[in-house]
Amino acid sequence: MMNSTLSGGKLSSFDDLIARFKAMTTKRRVVVVCPTDEPTRAVVEQCAAEGSAEFLLTVEAEHADSVRELASRHPGIEVFVADDIDGAATLGVKLVREGRGDVLMKGGINTDKLLRPVLNKEYGLLPQGEVLTHITLTKVPAYPNMLLFTDAAVIPAPNAEQLRAMVRYTVEAEHRLGNPCPRVALIHFTEKINPKFEYTLAYDEIMKEAAEGVYGECVVGGPMDVKTACDHHSAEIKGIDSPVAGKADVLIFPILTAANTFYKTVSFFCDAPMAGVLRGTTAPVVIPSRADHDNSKLYSLALACLL
Amino acid sequence: MMNSTLSGGKLSSFDDLIARFKAMTTKRRVVVVCPTDEPTRAVVEQCAAEGSAEFLLTVEAEHADSVRELASRHPGIEVFVADDIDGAATLGVKLVREGRGDVLMKGGINTDKLLRPVLNKEYGLLPQGEVLTHITLTKVPAYPNMLLFTDAAVIPAPNAEQLRAMVRYTVEAEHRLGNPCPRVALIHFTEKINPKFEYTLAYDEIMKEAAEGVYGECVVGGPMDVKTACDHHSAEIKGIDSPVAGKADVLIFPILTAANTFYKTVSFFCDAPMAGVLRGTTAPVVIPSRADHDNSKLYSLALACLL
Repeated sequence: MMNSTLSGGKLSSFDDLIARFKAMTTKRRVVVVCPTDEPTRAVVEQCAAEGSAEFLLTVEAEHADSVRELASRHPGIEVFVADDIDGAATLGVKLVREGRGDVLMKGGINTDKLLRPVLNKEYGLLPQGEVLTHITLTKVPAYPNMLLFTDAAVIPAPNAEQLRAMVRYTVEAEHRLGNPCPRVALIHFTEKINPKFEYTLAYDEIMKEAAEGVYGECVVGGPMDVKTACDHHSAEIKGIDSPVAGKADVLIFPILTAANTFYKTVSFFCDAPMAGVLRGTTAPVVIPSRADHDNSKLYSLALACLL
Repeated sequence: MMNSTLSGGKLSSFDDLIARFKAMTTKRRVVVVCPTDEPTRAVVEQCAAEGSAEFLLTVEAEHADSVRELASRHPGIEVFVADDIDGAATLGVKLVREGRGDVLMKGGINTDKLLRPVLNKEYGLLPQGEVLTHITLTKVPAYPNMLLFTDAAVIPAPNAEQLRAMVRYTVEAEHRLGNPCPRVALIHFTEKINPKFEYTLAYDEIMKEAAEGVYGECVVGGPMDVKTACDHHSAEIKGIDSPVAGKADVLIFPILTAANTFYKTVSFFCDAPMAGVLRGTTAPVVIPSRADHDNSKLYSLALACLL
């Protein structure tokens, strides 16, 4: 799914993300499971009307009529009807598995119900040995770079292997979004590798691997805190001489509660928009949260299509 | 150390904190260990000149002259000279232990060097059985309440007993700062008590104890995320009906990395000032960080004096 339309360099804003999404020469085919809630329907209608993506909608029989009605008003929308919500979820996953869809998106269905078929070993979307994780893209007014961070949604307490996968997925995503050499900050409250804090040992290994080129073109630094990662002044005061400090593009958090705290804090206190997507799966899966910013669904969909 | 001058109700801002500090009828006696760095000297001079506190300065012999010179320019400053930095730290702790000082403050000395005598079992400031923790006060422009949170500095992974102590200390601090019934949010990425996440079990116990009055006048709610704690809109969408949601005065984080992430994120991205102080000790101990906001030392000192 490398995208040849990305010639704009590093993403600068969500407006930039949307502009690139609209400009994609090969339209992505998005499978939406149960587009029965108003916010999901609105995003599908907008993107279909603008022609920025094609849609395959799966829906339970009970709501088939209203979804067919939506589809009739725009070109590039197909509707697939299942008996019930679980059937619509399985159908959606299978459409992606069979290559008929490029992206899977959650509509008016419980996240657990959608994840069950996604994780199914026979017909699901997670290859054996891959790590399911969640990456979030945000832009905070006080910082020039867009920030990609993980994991605010899936892995409560990642182990070293899972942290490695997070670095791999985020670096890959940055490359696809036009950043040739992302700067990745491994977040911790301490700045030293210390056996007392096991995450810092995993960080040490990851940094060595990154220096050997395991993750492709990128610079990985840490452990460092969020402020040091984004504020060169703070890094200078602390005497931290890392090419990542003050310039991070990616934040890897060692534990979900910390990533979630970052997510919720910049979302509420800085009014920062968010785009989120599951990775590790063969196709990006979009699982917006109810309490997100208004534009979050559209931004998440655009991000998923550009990956 | 209950303070009878607090009649202004809940703190509204750092300006309010400083106004109350200056208006204290009984001046606090602040022991400063090694006021040899410029930022510490500036705070001592300002408070001494304004008469908002009295000072006992301990210093290593090498820098005694410059500290004596500082003291000579203001009333209400005493100087105590020790052989070396470790001696100055021990002397400072003993002055507080003997009741000659009400607050201990770190100057140009390494935090570890100051904490060693603070934690000394014979002449230190931590009674047996008490939990040493760190509380931080901040004000983020987007939220009307000042927020007191813990622990961004001392306990990497608190157990249930340590979380209890954090609730006790923060509620106590809120009372002393004029908030008759603080709303305490127990932070987690989940909203349900779940044996899979051990912190939520501790939270469950703490909420039951709070309802029984164990922590005095307060309302404790959770688990909830930072946004739910501070944004009633987010709480409504999620259907969370807690008197704490959207109105928190206190945030208890389950793990240091999350509290540190909150601290660094609002500090850098929201330019939020911070005041921090150690609790569990018989007297508040002020340990400013080098990378803090300019006013952080003064705010921390004011907070310590008001506790």
